[in-house]
Amino acid sequence: MKFCSNCGARTVQRIPPGDNLPRAVCDQCDSIHYENPRLIVGCIPEWEDKILLCKRAIEPRVGMWTVPAGFMENGETTAAGAQRETLEEANARVDIVAPYALYNIPHINQVYLLFRARLLDLDFSAGSESLEVELFTADSVPWRELAFATVRNTLTHYFADRQDKEFRFHMGTIEPMRTTHDPSTPV
Amino acid sequence: MKFCSNCGARTVQRIPPGDNLPRAVCDQCDSIHYENPRLIVGCIPEWEDKILLCKRAIEPRVGMWTVPAGFMENGETTAAGAQRETLEEANARVDIVAPYALYNIPHINQVYLLFRARLLDLDFSAGSESLEVELFTADSVPWRELAFATVRNTLTHYFADRQDKEFRFHMGTIEPMRTTHDPSTPV
Repeated sequence: MKFCSNCGARTVQRIPPGDNLPRAVCDQCDSIHYENPRLIVGCIPEWEDKILLCKRAIEPRVGMWTVPAGFMENGETTAAGAQRETLEEANARVDIVAPYALYNIPHINQVYLLFRARLLDLDFSAGSESLEVELFTADSVPWRELAFATVRNTLTHYFADRQDKEFRFHMGTIEPMRTTHDPSTPV
Repeated sequence: MKFCSNCGARTVQRIPPGDNLPRAVCDQCDSIHYENPRLIVGCIPEWEDKILLCKRAIEPRVGMWTVPAGFMENGETTAAGAQRETLEEANARVDIVAPYALYNIPHINQVYLLFRARLLDLDFSAGSESLEVELFTADSVPWRELAFATVRNTLTHYFADRQDKEFRFHMGTIEPMRTTHDPSTPV
């Protein structure tokens, strides 16, 4: 943030009184501008033994497969955001079942929150950000063509949990070159 | 956002091509500025049959009690943010045990994520944002002096779960005048 979004003056990076991190501070109108991580919300839409995936029509990772997910908007709940993204990307209607996985991606200031969801009908199709939308079993998932580490990890846990007949909440951290799990939280 | 944080020009509110919500758009440098909900991370620090609460020294709700929590910062994980807030507000060191509760507060564009945590020692004290820091049993919690609905709901679930000897993940939505739970997710 180089300019103040409140008055348009140039900001300076400085640690405000009582704070311990540098912020974009405006000396003209005394605003302090905080930048915080963004939440990406989405779901795993379930239909019998299958799940719905979308082939991305947009960067990054055009042509790779992902679960429907996107930036949470102001004024909505996490579950409503996941439903909205599923409608936008897959023209699909879902009921949210339960929160399923949370991934921290600190190097890009993102937090992924994914739900399990129940697909309400088979009347789905590619939205404007998708090339194709398709149902996959555990065996037919295009494992080598998944767009993101978050998706690969989530689906790996998902099919393992389903085999165990017990869905647990998973949490982990995606690092730039590798994937680890928070040691504090069993996955 | 009245002015562009990238170039300082005045922005206009407009729906960008391919989008469906109005955004602050800069016609001088073609930036689109998105505003998204913020994550508040915190924890319930446990010590034997007690939990640690902080009496707030800052607005809102000065003099009311809360769990240690605050805005997640860029570059950290949700668990690291909860640990940092606990250190800042209560000078207390914790190990994060597991995610425990998620509350949507859509009317103020916030999402609360609270963990269960294990207090590592009794060497805690009020940080600069707290007036007092104290351990409470279920019976001694100042229920009528809790700062936020998120805290009241979380602690109600927490002590009920502890009696049941089973901690489940809770999710709910705080509305302006009342508290409801996402119908999609059992709490």
